[in-house]
Amino acid sequence: MPTEAGQGLLPHYPFQQLIGFRKLEMTLGYARFALEMRDDLLNLVGIPHGGVHALLLDAALGSAGCFVAEGAPSRRAVTLNLNVSYLAVPRGAMLIAEGRRVGGGRKVFFSEGVVRDDTGLDLARASGTFRYID
Amino acid sequence: MPTEAGQGLLPHYPFQQLIGFRKLEMTLGYARFALEMRDDLLNLVGIPHGGVHALLLDAALGSAGCFVAEGAPSRRAVTLNLNVSYLAVPRGAMLIAEGRRVGGGRKVFFSEGVVRDDTGLDLARASGTFRYID
Amino acid sequence: MPTEAGQGLLPHYPFQQLIGFRKLEMTLGYARFALEMRDDLLNLVGIPHGGVHALLLDAALGSAGCFVAEGAPSRRAVTLNLNVSYLAVPRGAMLIAEGRRVGGGRKVFFSEGVVRDDTGLDLARASGTFRYID
Amino acid sequence: MPTEAGQGLLPHYPFQQLIGFRKLEMTLGYARFALEMRDDLLNLVGIPHGGVHALLLDAALGSAGCFVAEGAPSRRAVTLNLNVSYLAVPRGAMLIAEGRRVGGGRKVFFSEGVVRDDTGLDLARASGTFRYID
Repeated sequence: MPTEAGQGLLPHYPFQQLIGFRKLEMTLGYARFALEMRDDLLNLVGIPHGGVHALLLDAALGSAGCFVAEGAPSRRAVTLNLNVSYLAVPRGAMLIAEGRRVGGGRKVFFSEGVVRDDTGLDLARASGTFRYID
Repeated sequence: MPTEAGQGLLPHYPFQQLIGFRKLEMTLGYARFALEMRDDLLNLVGIPHGGVHALLLDAALGSAGCFVAEGAPSRRAVTLNLNVSYLAVPRGAMLIAEGRRVGGGRKVFFSEGVVRDDTGLDLARASGTFRYID
Repeated sequence: MPTEAGQGLLPHYPFQQLIGFRKLEMTLGYARFALEMRDDLLNLVGIPHGGVHALLLDAALGSAGCFVAEGAPSRRAVTLNLNVSYLAVPRGAMLIAEGRRVGGGRKVFFSEGVVRDDTGLDLARASGTFRYID
Repeated sequence: MPTEAGQGLLPHYPFQQLIGFRKLEMTLGYARFALEMRDDLLNLVGIPHGGVHALLLDAALGSAGCFVAEGAPSRRAVTLNLNVSYLAVPRGAMLIAEGRRVGGGRKVFFSEGVVRDDTGLDLARASGTFRYID
């Protein structure tokens, strides 16, 4: 659940490598991740497992609150609560997860986000509550 | 998000194999999954990524509504909504996810569940809304 | 939890009258409600009880999926799940709740929304899952 | 959203009086509230408005984390997130809401709970995240 900030965009922690998702962009109050569809993300009916959307949204929503300017000490957060709604199954070959910070203060923040495929279809939407850690 | 029922307990769909979780038990209104902790489930601060708990809970809560008696046609469900709260970081070497169906009818059902480690510590708790598919 | 459609905007069901909230606008995929702040909406520390935001959001998110054109048979929905995050306490004298349908089909739909005060401050944000009833 | 502790069980804040719910019991990690069904709690299809369950659950889940021993300084909490699932419509004449603290620490806690009618039927189930305030 902790979410990094203040470093580059290459995948470098273990779970990111296992799943293969990577950070595309991270700015103040915003983060975007991508994951190419692969057969080993599917469940038994041939669509992405719900955990795939959830893990992308956890990463995107948490990262959305953790941007810091170049040279500033990095911020990290742990997830308190993540709520995901599943709207559709993908038609495209790529999953894009965006998160935006929508409120909060110095200790706790709130984010919302969406997973879309590369045709622009909303697949899952989420809201989350996060706590900064030192 | 679809969740199987009416088959054996061995991991056999692709995302289960990628992550390495397996179904331990499935009875009427109940399902239990297990996953050994491994380094590639960790995030950048060395604890399991929040997506790990979420994927186990999605599987356990969905499966909890899909048990059928031997010989009956299998049931499957898709997740409409999954809500996960993160309570603690694991002390043990194993993650155990349990789901229980707590209500609903022929079309929609509700489940709740928990991920514990093998010391019995609650790591994450969840509730979910699921819809049966044909 | 059921939510009306196809009728006028005056408060007319009992709980609306008790609380005093009223529908301001309802169009395709959108609904907006208002409630003047009053002392009897407060909790023991002098801010609106969390239930106030929740009831407004339940009404707004459910109504957002229930608009029908003039003359068409009305639609109603029951809430399956409502998730509310509390961001701030009001500075103004009015609560405005908006809901937007964000996905779904003929049987189930998803909405999101926000409660703001009349200064434009976000007080609470929500997502919900609803089911149409006949 | 703030929730009292350390005082008697009589309804005494304004919103409690408007709605008519009262605290029946409050012990360490647990709280229970009751509300008699009345016509002015109903929506347009003649069942309790979803906001009724939500306000009772917000009160019960928050209070569950706020018990203090006789003479100790009172604790209060604000709701960060409340998630409610709607399972059934009441058959009885009374709504009983129970909340239990299920985790957390000195700053944030997690609760879960249920609203039942007096026949024992589960009407709504909820989980919430709360933050202690000074």
